[in-house]
Amino acid sequence: MNYSEESLKKHAEWRGKIEVISRVSVNSREDLSLAYTPGVARPCKEIQKNPELSFSLTRRWNTVPVVTDGTAVLGLGDIGPEAGMPVMEGKCALFKSFGNVDAIPLCIRSKDVDQIVETIKLLQGSFGGINLEDISAPRCFEIEQRLKKELEIPVFHDDQHGTAVVSAAALINATKLVGKKIEDLRVAVNGAGAAGVAIAKFFLQLGVSDLVLCDSKGIICEGDPRLNAPKQEVAKLTNKRKLTGKLDVAMKDADVFVGVSVANCVTKEMIQSMNKDAIVFTCANPVPEIPRRDAFDAGAAIVGTGSSENPNQINNVLVFPGLFRGALDVRARDINFDMMLGAAKAIAATVGDELCPEKILPFAWEMKSHEAVAKAVAEEAIRTGVARV
Amino acid sequence: MNYSEESLKKHAEWRGKIEVISRVSVNSREDLSLAYTPGVARPCKEIQKNPELSFSLTRRWNTVPVVTDGTAVLGLGDIGPEAGMPVMEGKCALFKSFGNVDAIPLCIRSKDVDQIVETIKLLQGSFGGINLEDISAPRCFEIEQRLKKELEIPVFHDDQHGTAVVSAAALINATKLVGKKIEDLRVAVNGAGAAGVAIAKFFLQLGVSDLVLCDSKGIICEGDPRLNAPKQEVAKLTNKRKLTGKLDVAMKDADVFVGVSVANCVTKEMIQSMNKDAIVFTCANPVPEIPRRDAFDAGAAIVGTGSSENPNQINNVLVFPGLFRGALDVRARDINFDMMLGAAKAIAATVGDELCPEKILPFAWEMKSHEAVAKAVAEEAIRTGVARV
Repeated sequence: MNYSEESLKKHAEWRGKIEVISRVSVNSREDLSLAYTPGVARPCKEIQKNPELSFSLTRRWNTVPVVTDGTAVLGLGDIGPEAGMPVMEGKCALFKSFGNVDAIPLCIRSKDVDQIVETIKLLQGSFGGINLEDISAPRCFEIEQRLKKELEIPVFHDDQHGTAVVSAAALINATKLVGKKIEDLRVAVNGAGAAGVAIAKFFLQLGVSDLVLCDSKGIICEGDPRLNAPKQEVAKLTNKRKLTGKLDVAMKDADVFVGVSVANCVTKEMIQSMNKDAIVFTCANPVPEIPRRDAFDAGAAIVGTGSSENPNQINNVLVFPGLFRGALDVRARDINFDMMLGAAKAIAATVGDELCPEKILPFAWEMKSHEAVAKAVAEEAIRTGVARV
Repeated sequence: MNYSEESLKKHAEWRGKIEVISRVSVNSREDLSLAYTPGVARPCKEIQKNPELSFSLTRRWNTVPVVTDGTAVLGLGDIGPEAGMPVMEGKCALFKSFGNVDAIPLCIRSKDVDQIVETIKLLQGSFGGINLEDISAPRCFEIEQRLKKELEIPVFHDDQHGTAVVSAAALINATKLVGKKIEDLRVAVNGAGAAGVAIAKFFLQLGVSDLVLCDSKGIICEGDPRLNAPKQEVAKLTNKRKLTGKLDVAMKDADVFVGVSVANCVTKEMIQSMNKDAIVFTCANPVPEIPRRDAFDAGAAIVGTGSSENPNQINNVLVFPGLFRGALDVRARDINFDMMLGAAKAIAATVGDELCPEKILPFAWEMKSHEAVAKAVAEEAIRTGVARV
């Protein structure tokens, strides 16, 4: 199928992938008096006395905006807020279908960090959590950090942490298959944008001790004056062998390659230079870092991609619906590492007996995975003391 | 029924009066490839080339936020954004039920005019129109005027214009019943907040030549230095007999009284001082300007109130769902006087043969009224050149 043509046709038919419905009847005087005036004055007054009641007397408890400025939409780059909307609506549809979260797309016509932070802060009273989406690096790091500090509800930048969690789930299962230990892995990550930086940090927290991160110029080295602040920070945590050079240096003798970068930047020779039983995740979209077939030909044992056309799609739709479901269910005030680790383990565990090199992750439409994520996230929120119920 | 207690109980059961649903299936690889990646990249790119397509390839065409800062919610005053949410959700439920509009509540945690205007401006790309709600006067006038000027989509402050339109519909039918002409009416309006000022201006545009507007201090007179800018402006248009004094002076010999003010500020004597066949609309909520029974006892021919408990509820739910339906259907870039007049006439005409002193307006749940409003508004938008399709 030509997904591009067919999707355009479908979007024109759908005229929107989500819809707002009423959950109450308003077909009589009595209905109106309860759902609206005069009765509605009472829940208003109760919330005025105790704003926490906005989580039980309105839809706030289940409502999350998918917020973007349209600067890093898919692999399309800075296409603007309106053009980002089909992706945001798509995420909202997935939020509902897999997490029963009421998600609404909010596209902000600004690229200014202060303005974006301020806008979201002013609106927080309407929501139970905030999902940031497709905001370009390095702005996304500051926006997320400030919001996490200043807001009273959980904030999650999916392009960073959703990608990190699903990559971690894939890593856990792939490592199990090839019989290696996470602590022993040498990992090369290519791409130091939102996803790459988050994956690097997450993998290190997961126990990987040797991780080399590359951007388009090559290996990220501590102290390199060309690096922006987020890269400087991650440089301190990575590249313990003090390598210098390009991606080929980083990939030599690596057990794992994760690409969240650009099309065709990896050669067969680079894959061949990796350790035995190499694990290769090529997430660039729509064209991967190296064709899947070539990666296998060059000796990769397990290959995951960003595409729905291949086995092992490394897709953060496995993460965000269940993660917010769990966080909202326990009124978590934050989404922390333990909750994300719980999500990654839950995703990996869902594969169960089906685990094989062609299936290291569940399919997006397997509800048991989303349910397991929600349960694990809620449990970790409670265990780490960020749950409020 | 004790609506206060029962409504609180219901709100705790409902946990939200609206919900976001998915309109697409995402239960297979193919579904996901069309609604989400990789297919979704195509509608994104098309909108990037032509942002107008956001109205046909996403839900923007049908989506309207109900925006408040929580400063003038019902008769409760400044209760804050979270506490305003039950009302906003109620409006969203009514928007859907009566106008098939996808409405979402957005409560802004700010009372600063610039900040509220800026927030809405930054979000406009997600929406087909903006419904402002329960923003206190005089800030609401400036916010609405600036947004109308600066936004590319229609903006409507319901507390001003929704109230004006439904009051005009009631006036048209009441006047018909008592056999008077609009042009000959003497009208006294009490309350010079959002609703009162808008009603005064709308009635004058409707043809009423003698209108006296009062605030809590008495009759609004041109040049009075105590008046804020919006009151100064309306003072120039009203009170052509140069009356001075309190509400009792304004009501003497009036044909029509409209109260959008406070409980029990009108006496029987004031009603008695009005002209024969007096029309009395007492919209203060929950306690009216004068008890309905007392108004009749004092000689009123027709009484409308703000309460759902009485006949002739003057409720702007008769206006906003159909008005936005009509405006969205023709992609109106503004909501102008002709469109609002069309709505008022359509509401009045819907009553048809049922017209009597106990029924000068349709019931909110009569769909034919909302449909007639939508049709009239769309027609007037086309006729006056603000429609874009």
